[in-house]
Order: sequence, then C-alpha cells, then structure tokens
Amino acid sequence: MRVSSISALVCFASFAAAQTFQRLGGCPDLGCIFPPDQVDFLAGQYFDIRLEVHSPVNGSEARVGEPDEDFTFTITKKGKKPLTAPEYFEIDEPELERWNFTWFEGNTFLTSSPRGTHKLIEADRFAEDAEMPSLVNVTSKIYRRIALYEPGEYEATLTYYGEQKTVANWVVRDLPTKRRAKNVVMFIGDGMTTNMITAARLIAHRSINGKYMTKMAMDKFPVLGHQMTHSMDSFITDSANSATALYTGHKTTVNALGVYVDSSEDTFDDPKFETIAEIYRRKNPNAGVGIVSTAFLADATPAGLGAHTSDRGNYDHVISAYYESLTDYEWTNWNGPDVLLGAGAEDFIKSEETRDYYKLFAEKGYNVAWNNTALENAPSDERLLGVFAKENLPTWLDRNVYQSNLYNQSNYPDGSGRDADDLPGLKEMTLKAVDVLDKRHRKDGWFLMSEAASIDKQMHTLDYDRSLGELLELDDTVRATIEKLEKLGELDDTLIIITADHGHGFDVTGSVDTEYMEAQTDDRSKRNAVGYYDNSGLSQYTIAGSNALRYSEGVHFPAQWDPRYTLHAGVGAFPDHREDYRIHKEGPRTPAVEDKKQGYIANYKDAVTGLMVNGTLPLDAGQGVHSLTDVPVFARGPCQELFGGVYNSIDIFFYMAECLGLSEVKYAGKPSRTLN
Amino acid sequence: MRVSSISALVCFASFAAAQTFQRLGGCPDLGCIFPPDQVDFLAGQYFDIRLEVHSPVNGSEARVGEPDEDFTFTITKKGKKPLTAPEYFEIDEPELERWNFTWFEGNTFLTSSPRGTHKLIEADRFAEDAEMPSLVNVTSKIYRRIALYEPGEYEATLTYYGEQKTVANWVVRDLPTKRRAKNVVMFIGDGMTTNMITAARLIAHRSINGKYMTKMAMDKFPVLGHQMTHSMDSFITDSANSATALYTGHKTTVNALGVYVDSSEDTFDDPKFETIAEIYRRKNPNAGVGIVSTAFLADATPAGLGAHTSDRGNYDHVISAYYESLTDYEWTNWNGPDVLLGAGAEDFIKSEETRDYYKLFAEKGYNVAWNNTALENAPSDERLLGVFAKENLPTWLDRNVYQSNLYNQSNYPDGSGRDADDLPGLKEMTLKAVDVLDKRHRKDGWFLMSEAASIDKQMHTLDYDRSLGELLELDDTVRATIEKLEKLGELDDTLIIITADHGHGFDVTGSVDTEYMEAQTDDRSKRNAVGYYDNSGLSQYTIAGSNALRYSEGVHFPAQWDPRYTLHAGVGAFPDHREDYRIHKEGPRTPAVEDKKQGYIANYKDAVTGLMVNGTLPLDAGQGVHSLTDVPVFARGPCQELFGGVYNSIDIFFYMAECLGLSEVKYAGKPSRTLN
Repeated sequence: MRVSSISALVCFASFAAAQTFQRLGGCPDLGCIFPPDQVDFLAGQYFDIRLEVHSPVNGSEARVGEPDEDFTFTITKKGKKPLTAPEYFEIDEPELERWNFTWFEGNTFLTSSPRGTHKLIEADRFAEDAEMPSLVNVTSKIYRRIALYEPGEYEATLTYYGEQKTVANWVVRDLPTKRRAKNVVMFIGDGMTTNMITAARLIAHRSINGKYMTKMAMDKFPVLGHQMTHSMDSFITDSANSATALYTGHKTTVNALGVYVDSSEDTFDDPKFETIAEIYRRKNPNAGVGIVSTAFLADATPAGLGAHTSDRGNYDHVISAYYESLTDYEWTNWNGPDVLLGAGAEDFIKSEETRDYYKLFAEKGYNVAWNNTALENAPSDERLLGVFAKENLPTWLDRNVYQSNLYNQSNYPDGSGRDADDLPGLKEMTLKAVDVLDKRHRKDGWFLMSEAASIDKQMHTLDYDRSLGELLELDDTVRATIEKLEKLGELDDTLIIITADHGHGFDVTGSVDTEYMEAQTDDRSKRNAVGYYDNSGLSQYTIAGSNALRYSEGVHFPAQWDPRYTLHAGVGAFPDHREDYRIHKEGPRTPAVEDKKQGYIANYKDAVTGLMVNGTLPLDAGQGVHSLTDVPVFARGPCQELFGGVYNSIDIFFYMAECLGLSEVKYAGKPSRTLN
Repeated sequence: MRVSSISALVCFASFAAAQTFQRLGGCPDLGCIFPPDQVDFLAGQYFDIRLEVHSPVNGSEARVGEPDEDFTFTITKKGKKPLTAPEYFEIDEPELERWNFTWFEGNTFLTSSPRGTHKLIEADRFAEDAEMPSLVNVTSKIYRRIALYEPGEYEATLTYYGEQKTVANWVVRDLPTKRRAKNVVMFIGDGMTTNMITAARLIAHRSINGKYMTKMAMDKFPVLGHQMTHSMDSFITDSANSATALYTGHKTTVNALGVYVDSSEDTFDDPKFETIAEIYRRKNPNAGVGIVSTAFLADATPAGLGAHTSDRGNYDHVISAYYESLTDYEWTNWNGPDVLLGAGAEDFIKSEETRDYYKLFAEKGYNVAWNNTALENAPSDERLLGVFAKENLPTWLDRNVYQSNLYNQSNYPDGSGRDADDLPGLKEMTLKAVDVLDKRHRKDGWFLMSEAASIDKQMHTLDYDRSLGELLELDDTVRATIEKLEKLGELDDTLIIITADHGHGFDVTGSVDTEYMEAQTDDRSKRNAVGYYDNSGLSQYTIAGSNALRYSEGVHFPAQWDPRYTLHAGVGAFPDHREDYRIHKEGPRTPAVEDKKQGYIANYKDAVTGLMVNGTLPLDAGQGVHSLTDVPVFARGPCQELFGGVYNSIDIFFYMAECLGLSEVKYAGKPSRTLN
C-alpha cells in the first residue's frame, strides 16, 4: 500500500471537516491573483499569472449577473507607471476562460490586515452535512512563462466589476549573483522532527552517566536552524506543498506541486512556477541533478523537483516530467535528472494508464537498474534510472533485521511477481548518485536531493521503531556521504543541508516494562508498566541482546531492537488503536482498519496483549497526521551561515539559490532586456 | 495547589513502575564514586567526593559479610602518580559512615562499555508488587569542598574488597579565562519546546498567504542551538536535576538540586557541587545576581541556583539557601541574590516549619514588595525581595483576559487571606530586576535568571491555552528586556540566552470546529469536527473577536482566545481526560481527579460537551509528564557563537562560565597553590 498517497487521499475525503479556509486559498475577494499577495520571487524565475473573477450564484456573497469579462490587470515596480501584462512582459493577451465550482460556505466575518479589511468566509461542516453547496461562476485569464528580473517591490492590481480591486504585493529578492557552492546535497527526512532525532539518538548511541560516547552525524553540523512548514492557506501542510516551498520559494495548497491552485477542475492548467532543479539546469546546461528517495518516485517529495500539477495523485504526470519535462505548455526544458533512484515500479511498467518508461528512459540513454547488484555495477559516467521495488522501498529494519518480511511481497520492479530481495538502502543509492554526479559533472557541479521518505510513512502508521530506523539510516547516509565527498576532494565545495518538510507530533515520555504489561490482564493495570521521570531508566537498546545485527555498533544503530524495557512513545493525535509498545517483528504496523459502518477502528491483531487507545482524529483517518511544529535545518559547507536561526520554509529555496548563484538580475527598461 | 511539587511527588509514588536504573544511579559496581565516571568540571569549581562500598544482604548480588571498612581512594591527573585524597587536596581523612538501604531488584545482565563490562540490574516491578525488597549495607566517606584547577583528564580510583576497583574518569575543561560578557540574562521557559513556540506564533502573529507579518522576539535571535535534557541515570528529567545541569555542569538524578544522590536517607548530606551563581559571586564579590520566576520561589528552577539537597521538596532549605547559603557544612558564601522576585508566600510566612523570612530578609537589608505597586516603587539601589502571591503566580491569561479568576483565591502574600489582585507579570518582574542589578552593579556586571514557570505547569494540566499564554509572555518579556538594555547602553555587553529545562510531547495537528463538536451527540461523531491538512485552515486567534484584551496586537498576543475554530492540540502521553478543545475561561484546567479505587480518572466537569480520551500513563499520574525531546537554545550578544548546533545541557553552564571568565586555572604542583 502507498502510505503517502493514502494520507494524501484522506485530505479529499468527504468525512474531513472543512474549516476556516477561504472560498479559494489566497483569494480574499471576488477577484483573485495568483501568485497571490505577499509572495517572493527569485530574480529571473519563470512563473505564470492566473487571474479569476468570481460571481457567486447563492450563499452570503450571492450577486446578480455573470462574472466580469472585462476585468483589467496591471503590474508595476512600486513608484513606477502601471502597465498591462502584455505591455510589461511583451506577450499576447490570452483568451478569456470560463468555468464554475461549488464549495460549502458557512459564516462570514471581517478580518483586517495591515492593508485593509477583507471578508473571510468559513467553509462549514454543517453546510456540508446539509449538502448545501454554494455555486460560483468564474471568468479567468492566465499569462504563462514570464519572469521578473529587477529586485524590489511590485504591485499587481486586478480591477473588476467597475471599481473593485484586488492588489497583490510581490517582492523580487535582491540576492548576490555570485555562485559560492559548486555542489549542493539536500537531505530531506520526510516528517522528521527534533523529537524524533532525540529518540533515535537514545536508542542508537551509548551514554554513560548522561554523557553520550558517540554523536550522530547531524549533531556534528556547525549550523542549526528552524523552518516553518505551514501552507499558504492552511497551517498544516502535506509533503507536496511543503516540497514545493523548499524547491521553489512558493508556498501553495495541500496536494499541489509547483503550482498555485486555481478554482478550475483541470489539475494541469494551474499557474506554475519554476523549481530549483529547473532553474539550475536552465542556467547551467552542463550541471548535474540527482534525485534519490526511499519512496515510490512519483511521490510528492521527489516529484516536487519537476512536476507541476494541483493534484499530487497524477503519478503519470510526475514520471513524464522526469522523462520529458512539460508537454502541455511551453516551459523550461530541464531535460530530467542524471540519476533517479528509488521505488514505485508500478508507475514505470507499461499499463493502460502508463507508457513503458523503462524502455523510454533506456532509449534516452539511461541505464536501468532493478536491484542493488545492478546499481553497484552501473557505469557512473552514464545516466542512471534505478527502480528497486514496487510501492515504497522496504524499511531499513526489514532489510537489515527482520529480513523474512522481504518475502512474499511480489514487489520485484520488473513486474514479474518475484520478491525484491537484493535491495539497496538510502545510503547505497545516495553514494551511487554522488558517484554518477561527480563523474559526469565534476567541472560544472551538481544538485542532489536525497529523501528518507519512510520516517514519515512509518510515523503515519505509528510504527515508531521503523520510523526511527529510517532516521538512523539517514544519519548513517549523511556520515557516509561526507566521507565520500572528502575522498573525492569535493567536501569543501559542497553545501550539505539536512531538513524535513513537516513534522508529526511524536515524543518519548518514559519506558515500558513489556513483560509486566503483558502479565497484567486489564487495560488500566497495564498502564502501570510505564515508568516515567526517574523510572524511565536508561536505554536498553544500546545493550547487545539476543538478535545479532549485521550492522556493527560503529555505525550507530541499536544493538537490540526488542529489549524488555521499550520506549513509551506516542503522538498528539491518532486513530483508534492498541499499544503494546513492542516492535512489530512480523512487518510494518497497521494500527487501524476500516469498518463500513464506524469508519476506522483499532486493529486488534496489531497489539493483542496491549491496551486500547481511543482516537482523537476524524473517523476517516486510519493513520496519524502531520503536525505544526517547526522542523530543524542542519547545514555545513559554503553558505552554511545563511541557515542559522528561525525562518520560513521558502527561505531554504532562496538560500540554496543564492549559494548556487541562480539569481538573474537585470535592471531598468523592460525586464526581458539585459543591460549593456 | 503546587503543580510542580505534585508532579515531583508522583516520582516517589509507589505506583510508579521501577525500570532499568541501577542499584544506585551512577554506581555500576559495589563501589561507588560521586562525582561518577565521565563527569566534567569547571577549573576551580568547588565539589564534594562521596565514596560508598555496598554489601547486598540478599538478591542476586548477595555476599557474605559487612561492607569494606578499609577501602582506599586515589586520584591523579592521567600519567601522574596517584595520591590519596588527603595528600592530593591537603585535607584530613573524614570519619567512616555506615547505613543501609533497600530497593526492588530484578533481572541482572551484563552491559559492556568502552571501558569494560559491568553488571546492570533492573529494579523490577514484579519484585515491587511481591514486596520483596533487597537490603544493602553501606560503608562510606565524604571529602568536602575541594576543587581541581588544572585542565586535563583525571582518574579517580576506589579500591575495595581487596582487588575490586571502581574507576571514574573526570575531565577539567580547558577554557579561556578572559571574561567576554559583562552581564548574562538567562531566560528559562520551563518545559518549553520548539513545538510550543510554533503554536504560540500561530495564535499570536498574523500571516498572509503563508508569510508572517510580525516575528516573535525569539525568532529574531541570530544563533540557535539544541540541548539534550536527559538525567544522569534516567532519560526523562525533572526540573530539579535539569536546572542543576544548566547551572552547574553536572547532570544528576530526578529531584536532586546541586548534589549527586548518595544512598543514605539524609537528603542534606549528599555530595555537592558549586552553581554558577555561587562561583560568580565568590570570584566577583561585587557582581550582582538576580532570580525571577512566576513559580513559588522554592520551586526547582529558581532553587537550583543556591540549594543543595537530594530532595527538591525541602522548601525551607531552598529559602534559607537564598537567605544565608548553607549552614550544615562549610561552603561558598554567596550571600544571596540582589533581587529575588516570584511567588510562594507560604514558604516565607512564619509557621511551625518556617522562620519569618520576610523579617529576616528585611533585617538583612532587603526591601520587601507584596504587590505590583510596591514592586514599581521599590528603590532600585537596594536589595529587593518580591513575593506576590501564595503558590504560583496566576497565569498571564487569568491576569490579563479572564481576571475574575483572580478573586476568591485568598492568596495575598502577607497571609491575611485577601486576594492578590495587584500582580506583576514576568515582564514587570524582569524589567525591575534589570533596574536593580544595573543600579547596583553597573561597574562589575550581573547574572539574571528569569523563568516562565507556568509554560510547564499549565502543560502538565493539559491547559494548552494558558501554557501558550505564558510562552507569549516570555517572548514579550524578552522583547522588552532587549529594549531596556538598549536604553541602558548595556545591550552590547550582555549575553542573552533563552532555553528550556525539558519538554512536553505537545504538538498541533489541525483545528476543531467547536460548534460542530458540541452539536454532535456521541464521542465518535464529535471527532469529525477536527480538520487536518488543508482543512486545518488558518488561525482565527489573530482576528479580533468578542473579548477585547488589555494588550494591543502590537505586542503579539492573540486578538481573541475563544474563536469558533480552535487548535486541535495534544500531548503524546496523558491521564484519562476529556477534550472539548475550548479555552477554560473559568480558570486553570483540572483534567483528571483521583478515585480511591481506580487511581486518576477523567474529570467530567472539565469538558462536559467534549469527548473521552483514555489515558496512557500509570494510574497515579493525574497530569501529563515531561518528555525526551531536545529543547531549543536562542542566543545573542557576546559569546553567542558558542551556543549554535547540538550539545548537552551541561554545556550551557560551561559556555556561560567561559563567557563570564569563571574558569580558575592553576598549573603544576599542588592544585591549591597558584603559580607565580
């Protein structure tokens, strides 16, 4: 099963209570401009402008008549004369578009912002239950593939229904254009929080009287920051729009990749903006790009580097964007990554929906690897596609400790129905990607994104052991990558950052005597097996136990995963489930199962000798959900000083772009003309 | 009620399941040395050495005969000749002491550390249920008030029962002795995590399309770090031993203040070590010290600066330590703080257990203030004791928004039974403390600790609104303190750090339509009022609502505390309780109540229209508990660069001590002799 696609799907589920978002995210009035108010741009970054005028047929905003067909739009650098988009960008006026949409509207009230008062409308769960949608007719235009080159403040104004105006204030950041880093490695621990790092350290690193004898690789990074992960129009993000923020400098809406979400049904016509991979390749045709993930490669975090759609579920679009960039519109042709390694074979195998991508990538000059042996043996001076399993890559714990879980999965990437049992991990994939990028682009440099995806996927299913195993594999990968770059002589020229795209509300509150818990017969007395404060004791995971691991203590994984005294861990919100606080040796966890009548209920088999924990999430949620917390950023190398302190997720894009010298500044005259 | 003392008490409760701690924390063998193995010292820091030899009468370690009376102890800088303590420190040999103790022992297994194999013994809940304690006879000696002045590695060896040896490896850190900061302000948000800061930002700061229009004061600090909060002998800490780590550079055991915990019953004879306030005053007799807290002043976080006891519950000892330092043993006479502001009047009022401290402090030259007016009017050039309420100071929310909760509390600090209704907050107390310290010690500088205590206390009772209000008050206090230091011309000479002593497993996972939840009749359908991902919507706390606050938006508190759409927040472990996700306007929350038969059960009145959440904590826990997570450190000013990255809680002490030039280095010869 695809944990992350499922967790994305629940966002659409009719069960989910609609809340305080506006009629259309980023659109406070009946006129909408995308990119919306308060957006920042990198100088020279391609983007589209979508304009909409709304005419609600019913509901509190109901008005007589059709939406305005004669709306006007101007843009200007503050203090200068407003010009129409065709004048400003030297482009043609596009066709007028029309459509309508419905939503569930509730209360209305006023919200005042530093720049005036706006109507904010709550989409309402009562209206949803009553099946009373509000209908809105729309007129729209879109200006495609434009850019702003002159740093400063801009004002974009949409005028409609005569005198009504919607204004968007934009900033083109004034960044130094001198390139400071030759290479960038961006590690993303999907869903990784400081709390999880602390727990992973506890189970993998030995301490004596409160002093750790070894350090995590992350803990050795000189610069630490926090980034805010919220969406443009909701304070909890998913991995699609958070990846978009990290790669493009634009926050958008849940489930959107590389676009702002307009109100049309089409999930491919939304206003796009260019990603760091696209800009980097466009400005440096000989630079390298690598993408590595333990998820299926159509999943949000890898997809964010090349895809542009309002629905992350368009998996074929994602793979085709790796293969041939966009075909629906003229856009930047970034020509795909040099190296693309991960899982999700079902999206590459020919089917009714899918082309034979293995064949297509091979024809384009990619070597295709289906297992770890082929990965190792693939020539590093050629492009490489590695797809090692269907769905997501099995977890580090299943690949290294409970290996019997690899069998009877029928997940071999060729679709033959065999088991994928010769599997690389994040470390093997990342080191090979570095090899390929270094061999092919030693002179011009490269950008590599490497994602530990199942930190998040295993958190969703409350499988904390597997999640922490993935986090420790990420840390081991960071350690090995630094050593490799050192050997290659590239370390001093490489910016390395480790961050996350959002959190889960996870923490550890003590330990559990699993034998004592099992010996108790009722749920209440089982709780007395929990020790907290001084009774939390010391970690037993670092003490060699019954099961010998392939991994030596030297690389900092637990010496045993199934001690008698385990972590008392939990998250802040959850579905109905049972807890016995033991590792799930038989395979990844399924905490809740769907019941036709009741929604999700606890999966009894998941923890037979444990206790029942009633959920606090809606009944359509069979998993845990993402949380609000700022996530950590660890940085080392050129420009590391940019990443200290607290900032917004979009700043990660701007800091990386600055370090790679991607800002394309042109002053005076028409923005499309360079100064001589 | 004293939230924190109660939360401390549960650590002793017989219910709590004993876990993997050793017979005696820090003592792996039958011979014990305190300070134990792997401890660091500041050069010149006073400490005691406690030696114990154990002879278990029964249990797996049972041995025939009495504990060794003729054990020997030597110490040496690595590579040099071992000397006995009397030779090394030029002190007399102390008397031999004897006692015994019991504990609940269970399984035994071997643990190997980099320096050999040790027996680790699990104290066992089964043995506790069976009431089968193990008895241990003890011989012991203690060397008091000694110090090491020469940086480097030391080896302390206890030899007993003939050939048996326990070795402790100590390090005296080699730190620059040049003072770099004139003043230090140390803000402690008790229990404050990154997750809470993120939530506080969301409810208090307005954002447009994902960009915050204002910043928190903390978010503007240039340097960010993470510190590890675990105890010496358990991975979850309490506020006593975490305060000890921050102020002394020594991690110890839960409930201990400024001492390692020996096995004797006496809570005042344990081996001490000097705090930063004591060292700073001893080395700079004209330097100032200020202590501010919103808790009762005998509480752990303020107490840690002067008290030395293995039981934080010895409140009279704490107050007497502020007043006259230690009287039981010769120790450093730090002569108490210049300014001491907070609550907990019951410990100052004359009673059978307590001297009339108001009178005693006044006789010593302190002005005594009992309300905000008196605080404002107190002369800043004289010492000041401010005690503003019994128990803890009422929360920011009750003082500023729901003020009717201040009445019928009978908490006026004179004990007259009146209500304390003229109350300062953390900001008023901190700014006055800065005034006093600056007036009295402009020339020699000063150290101020200011604690937002109820971030933790209100988290314990799952009162997230009140906890976040305290956090926002801390942030407002930081902002105002920086402005004041700027005005005084002292900002550039002042190191300001903001950190916490531990966390709670708190996070936000979405929003709740409280009207929809109330309208549903069963617990399961109530859960559908929760919106997550895109349905979390936007914060409504920043939109002006019905209740007008005294505070303007300018200082960044919520514009309304009771919006229809509230935060869906929770912690990772909890007692039985009910949740309606509404603010508790009628006063601080009581989530669970004690039932003689069942232990703690949900308090129905706490959330009548909400849903039931079954607990995951032992039945003796009526509150949430502390968590494992690393906590943030924000730094600005001289030495700010020391506080970046990830480190241990004890490093905060060493970084502050380095910045204040407190390391007293002497080389060669007898450590007590200075080089000429």
